[in-house]
Amino acid sequence: MGKGQELYKKAKTMIPGGTSLLSKRPEQLLPENWPAYFSKAKGCKVWDLDGREYIDCGLMGVGTNTLGYARDEVDEAVMNVVRNSNFSTLNCPEEVYLAERLLKFNTWAGGVRYTRGGGEANSMCVRIARAYTGKDKIAICGYHGWHDWYVSVNLGESDALAGHLLPGIPTAGVPKGLRGTSIPFHYNDFEEIETIIRNTPDLAAVKMEVCRNFGPAEGYLEHIRNLCNEYGVILIFDECTSGFRETFGGLHKKYGVYPDMTIYSKTMGNGYVIAAVLGKKEIMDAAQGSWISSTFWTDRIGPTAALAALDVMEKTKSWEYITEKGKQNKIRWQALADKYGLKINQWGIPALAGYTFDSPNALAYKTYVTQEMLKKGYIAGTLMYTSLAHTDEILDGYFEALDPIFARICDFEDGADVMKELDGPVCQAGFKRLN
Amino acid sequence: MGKGQELYKKAKTMIPGGTSLLSKRPEQLLPENWPAYFSKAKGCKVWDLDGREYIDCGLMGVGTNTLGYARDEVDEAVMNVVRNSNFSTLNCPEEVYLAERLLKFNTWAGGVRYTRGGGEANSMCVRIARAYTGKDKIAICGYHGWHDWYVSVNLGESDALAGHLLPGIPTAGVPKGLRGTSIPFHYNDFEEIETIIRNTPDLAAVKMEVCRNFGPAEGYLEHIRNLCNEYGVILIFDECTSGFRETFGGLHKKYGVYPDMTIYSKTMGNGYVIAAVLGKKEIMDAAQGSWISSTFWTDRIGPTAALAALDVMEKTKSWEYITEKGKQNKIRWQALADKYGLKINQWGIPALAGYTFDSPNALAYKTYVTQEMLKKGYIAGTLMYTSLAHTDEILDGYFEALDPIFARICDFEDGADVMKELDGPVCQAGFKRLN
Repeated sequence: MGKGQELYKKAKTMIPGGTSLLSKRPEQLLPENWPAYFSKAKGCKVWDLDGREYIDCGLMGVGTNTLGYARDEVDEAVMNVVRNSNFSTLNCPEEVYLAERLLKFNTWAGGVRYTRGGGEANSMCVRIARAYTGKDKIAICGYHGWHDWYVSVNLGESDALAGHLLPGIPTAGVPKGLRGTSIPFHYNDFEEIETIIRNTPDLAAVKMEVCRNFGPAEGYLEHIRNLCNEYGVILIFDECTSGFRETFGGLHKKYGVYPDMTIYSKTMGNGYVIAAVLGKKEIMDAAQGSWISSTFWTDRIGPTAALAALDVMEKTKSWEYITEKGKQNKIRWQALADKYGLKINQWGIPALAGYTFDSPNALAYKTYVTQEMLKKGYIAGTLMYTSLAHTDEILDGYFEALDPIFARICDFEDGADVMKELDGPVCQAGFKRLN
Repeated sequence: MGKGQELYKKAKTMIPGGTSLLSKRPEQLLPENWPAYFSKAKGCKVWDLDGREYIDCGLMGVGTNTLGYARDEVDEAVMNVVRNSNFSTLNCPEEVYLAERLLKFNTWAGGVRYTRGGGEANSMCVRIARAYTGKDKIAICGYHGWHDWYVSVNLGESDALAGHLLPGIPTAGVPKGLRGTSIPFHYNDFEEIETIIRNTPDLAAVKMEVCRNFGPAEGYLEHIRNLCNEYGVILIFDECTSGFRETFGGLHKKYGVYPDMTIYSKTMGNGYVIAAVLGKKEIMDAAQGSWISSTFWTDRIGPTAALAALDVMEKTKSWEYITEKGKQNKIRWQALADKYGLKINQWGIPALAGYTFDSPNALAYKTYVTQEMLKKGYIAGTLMYTSLAHTDEILDGYFEALDPIFARICDFEDGADVMKELDGPVCQAGFKRLN
C-alpha cells in the first residue's frame, strides 16, 4: 500500500468523507488503490507521496487549472503577494483592479462582489437577487453548490418525493422552512420553464447553467431571457464551471444571450481560491440593503491570482486551445470505441468532456480504465478536463495508452470477467445533475 | 487626495459597499481620509499606495494576524506550496496533518472539516448539527456571519420586530420560510436560555460566543452545558474570533467548559484563508448524511499556513503575549482617560480590546482619534487587536502619541467644537452584536 492510501485511511478517521470535495474522494476514482495525495504538480504532471510521477489526463484539479498546474506567471504574482503580505487592516488594491478587469469583458454588468468559493458565491448571488426583487423563490437547473437554498430542492414537494430530484444529494440538516423555495426545471424544456415563470408570482430568479450535457436547443436561452424580461425575473447564469472554457468569460457569450447576474469561479485564478459574482449595477447595489460581509473575502492572493490568470488566458487564448483539444479528444474516444466495437455515450462541452460505456458494467469499466491508466502513469478515468499543458505529444501518449485498455474491455463485453481484473472495489457513482 | 482614496472612490462605483468586509470600509474608520489600500505589510507596519508607512495599532487585519503581518515561518511554508502547486486532482496531505494537529489539542473532538471562511464554517456547523439531531432550530448569542440561517434572526417574530434584534444587520433577501428558526438569547441571562432549551423541542443547537464584552458569570457556561446535556442539544462555541487569543485553541479551555462543536478561523492561518469546524466524532459523521462539498476547500495554502502558524503560536505562546499586552493596554487607556478626566467604557477580551467614550460625541471623538493618530503615522482608532509585533517600544510610542489627543478631547468635553477639527465626516457606527 502506498503512502497516499495509508494517509487516506487515517484521514477518514478524522475528516468525514476523507476530503472536502466529493470528486477528490478515492472511492469516486479507484477505491483502495488511488494515490490520493500529491506532493508536487507542474504543467499536467503530478507527483504522489511516494515520488511517483503521473500525467494528469483527468480532472485537472477538478476543473480549476486550465493553464496547467503551477503556471509561472500566476505563481510569480502570488509569490510577490506573499512577500508583501496577503492581508492587512487596509484593503488590497487588486480587488479593485480585478473588478475593473471583469467589467471590461462583461460589458452588460456594472457590479462585482467576491467570495472564496463557488458554493458561497451562489448563495451570495441568490441573496442579492432576493433582496433586489423582494421575492423568495428561485427556479434552478444545474448544479449550484452545497448551501441550504439549493439543496432544499431535494426536500421535494412532499416527504415522499424527498431526494428524488437530484440523486446523490441528501438533504439532512436543511431546514424544512425552505421547502418549495427552489423549483427545479429540466434543460431544453421550453414549456416547463415558461409555466414556472408565468405561474410563480414570487419568483425572484431563474438560475441555471448555460449548457448541460448538451447545448441549448435553438431559441431556448432566448425564450428564457424573454420570459424573465416580461416578468421582471432575474436571470442568473452560473458559470462557476463553464467560465473561460469556450470564451474569454462565460459560455453565454458564445450564444449571445446575456444574464442579469453571473458567477465565475473554478478557472478564474487557475487553482487559487477566488470566486466572483457579477451583475447589473442596480441589482448588485441591492447587496447594500442586505448583510453580506466576510473577513477572508478581502484576502489578496485570490484577486492577484485571477488578474495574472486572466492575462495568461487572454494572451494564449486558452479557451480556444482547450476547446480544440477537447474536440479532438471526443473524436479520438469515438474512433477508439468504434475500433473495438464498444458503445460509448459522450457528454460535456469539449473542454470538460467525458464518456460513459453503454453497458451494464459501465462503472466497472470506468474503474478498470482508471486502474490500468494509473499503472501506465496516468491520472485518468473516462473524462478529460483539458488545459494548456495538454500538448499533442501528451495526448498522443494518452490515446496510445488507452488503446489496449479499450481492446480488453471489448473482451469483457465478449464474456471475459472484468471483476477478476480489478485490484479493488468498483468506484462509486457520484451525484447526478438535473438534465 | 491620496491614491488610496482615489482608488476607493473608483471601487465604490464597481463593488457595492466598496469592499467585501464592513470593518474595512473607510467610512467605518475615517471617511474620505483613510488610506484605504495597502501595498505592503510586515510585522505591525503597513505601507499605503503612496508609499507612506504606518504602524498598525488598530484592527491588525481585522483580527487575523496575531503573529504580525508576513510572519516568516508561515510565509516560507506558503511559498513552498506555491512552488509545488497549491492544487491538483489529488488531495493535499496538509489537510490531514492539520486535522491531526487540531484534534491533538482539542481532545474532546473527533472530527474536522474545513471551509475557506468563518461565515461558511458557521453554516457548515449548523448544517451538521441539524443533520445529526434532525431538528431545525438554533439558539444563538453573538455574531455568526452573513448566511441566511443566522441573519434570519432579524426577520423577527413579526414584521414589526424585524431588524430590532441585531441593529445594523438588514435581512433583505433572507427567505421568510426561515422566520423563527434562529432564536436569540442574551448573554449571562441564566433563565432566558433555560426557558428556550426547555420549551423548544425542535432545538438542534445552542450556538454562542464564549465571551462577549464581558466574560461569563460564574456558572453560566456550565449551566448551558448541563441543559444541553439534559435535552440532547448540541452546544457550539463559535471561536472564529476568540480562538488562539487566550489559550492554544478556544477561549472555552480557559473556563473548562467544552462544546460539542467549535469553529476556528481568523487567527488560525495568520491571515491566510482557512477555517475549521471541529466536533465530536458521532456528530461530525452526520456530515456524511448531508451534502457538504466545495472545490476550493481542498486548496493547499490554507492548511499549510495553519500548520505553520500553529507551530509559531505554540513556540512563542503568542496567546499569552497578546493577552498580556492587551491587559497593559486596558490599564494604560484607563490611566490616560483618568489623567484628562475623560469617561471611557472598555470592552472585549484583552487581545481584542477597545473603549468607547462615554459622551454624546463618542463617534466624533473616535473619528478624531483615528484622524490624529493617522497624522502621526498610526493605523489606530479606539481599539487594538494585539499581536506579537506589538513590542513595548511600539506600544510606548502609541500611548505617547495618544496622550495629546486625549488632552484635546478633554477640551472638547469642556466646550471646544470637535466638528471643527474633523477633516471629514464622522465615521459610521457599524453593527451591534447581541449583548
